[in-house]
Amino acid sequence: MAGRSARRPVTRYRAGEVDRRVDTLAVEEPLEIRVDGEPFTLTMRTPGDDVELAHGLLRSEGVITSREDVQVMRYCSDTTTLNVLDVALTRAPGVPLSGQRNLASYGGCGLCGSSTIDAVAERVLLGSRVEHADVEVDPAAITRALDGLREAQTLFAKTGGVHGAAVASAQGEVLHAREDVGRHNAVDKVLGRLVLDDAPPAPLLVVSSRASFEIVAKAAVAGVSVLACVSAPSSLAADAADQLGLTLVAFARDDRLTVVTSPERVRQGAADAPAAS
Amino acid sequence: MAGRSARRPVTRYRAGEVDRRVDTLAVEEPLEIRVDGEPFTLTMRTPGDDVELAHGLLRSEGVITSREDVQVMRYCSDTTTLNVLDVALTRAPGVPLSGQRNLASYGGCGLCGSSTIDAVAERVLLGSRVEHADVEVDPAAITRALDGLREAQTLFAKTGGVHGAAVASAQGEVLHAREDVGRHNAVDKVLGRLVLDDAPPAPLLVVSSRASFEIVAKAAVAGVSVLACVSAPSSLAADAADQLGLTLVAFARDDRLTVVTSPERVRQGAADAPAAS
Repeated sequence: MAGRSARRPVTRYRAGEVDRRVDTLAVEEPLEIRVDGEPFTLTMRTPGDDVELAHGLLRSEGVITSREDVQVMRYCSDTTTLNVLDVALTRAPGVPLSGQRNLASYGGCGLCGSSTIDAVAERVLLGSRVEHADVEVDPAAITRALDGLREAQTLFAKTGGVHGAAVASAQGEVLHAREDVGRHNAVDKVLGRLVLDDAPPAPLLVVSSRASFEIVAKAAVAGVSVLACVSAPSSLAADAADQLGLTLVAFARDDRLTVVTSPERVRQGAADAPAAS
Repeated sequence: MAGRSARRPVTRYRAGEVDRRVDTLAVEEPLEIRVDGEPFTLTMRTPGDDVELAHGLLRSEGVITSREDVQVMRYCSDTTTLNVLDVALTRAPGVPLSGQRNLASYGGCGLCGSSTIDAVAERVLLGSRVEHADVEVDPAAITRALDGLREAQTLFAKTGGVHGAAVASAQGEVLHAREDVGRHNAVDKVLGRLVLDDAPPAPLLVVSSRASFEIVAKAAVAGVSVLACVSAPSSLAADAADQLGLTLVAFARDDRLTVVTSPERVRQGAADAPAAS
């Protein structure tokens, strides 16, 4: 397997000065995931945590709902690289499999934001979602989780070229953090870790990026209660979070944040309440 | 068609203060592109410039090499939204079409960075690439193009939630700039504009994001000489740029930038040379 970072000679210009140096770049390599022998998807990812990534991705796509649905997952033996991962399922998949992941997930004529959200809502119902209606988080807990994510972003510190995602307790304690050149992959890795551990849904998911529809969909299917992102949400991310009952928090930096949907789960002083675990 | 931005009520926490306000979010909606009646791909994009986006994407995938390859492009009439775009080609496509865009583009056993780059190299050769061996840009021209892009990012100014891409002259004058919730889409839109205009390749492409393999591939297929990004490149972006003969510039901010590949095209004082047009 390739490492997660690689060194390359570069030429740097700074205020008119030129120097040659060696920079560290985040590694990006293709990963093809096959399900029962058929190509399912191809993603450009940072190597490492491929099994987590595949579990998270297959769960968010509704192909599996728990680790019991995976019989075995192994690298394809007829390649010289570790970039093809073969997944054998133990049972018929929850949704019809198709080589065209995205179209299978969201497609159909009359395509619009609403039908896209409906497709995810079906997958949320498929999963063993635990209701987190009683989860409350203090704004300070979100800040704490984002601080914890930043500390865990060792590849970002070296390269500046990867996104991070972390699942955390309602008090903001980071449970797992992962990095990847693709922001969806970082989320899949960290949620896939929970699938592999048969762990209950995490109350809080924090991401270093913007919130797109797909990130919201992944969080909702995994039963996350509060999704907090450092940057902006899209309109469809907000609409999906609203309809799926997910609390979406954006622009979470320093001592400020913006609650876009389901604000009842964010409350100052919530950390003191015993129910907020 | 949906607008490019939408307003949503939010709750904001700032240093312990709470207030309700209305925020402006970037619109994200699915767009399905069909080629000769078959689903080709689905992308989550900001509406507007869909025809540009499709021309840019089909060119970068090697399906078309110029606008003459497209007979007609129109929204599917049996949907109530403008989120399905039907493309009729005038000739057999340059590469075999497949519903599985990504796998068709980069797939195959023995999947690795090198085979991925080889697949793009074939598409670069398919295109009517103009050699830009004599293009030289001054670091100040790259800064100028990035300043021009920033000025053109009106949706970003309102929402903080979109990426931008611009094509520019060797002197850093912005020719076209586009925005999108997806960074690949912003690049496709701006390169698609050139396809629609039958314009020569742009010497310089600047993007507000990181440089992934796919952005490098799109730039190379479009015959761009210098690709400059605000943030970090991945290892595969650097390897691909190197092998495809593209100058890749990263961390281009204020008065500094890092030239990762083909540094001979970046020279202080190049703007004064008459050959640098």
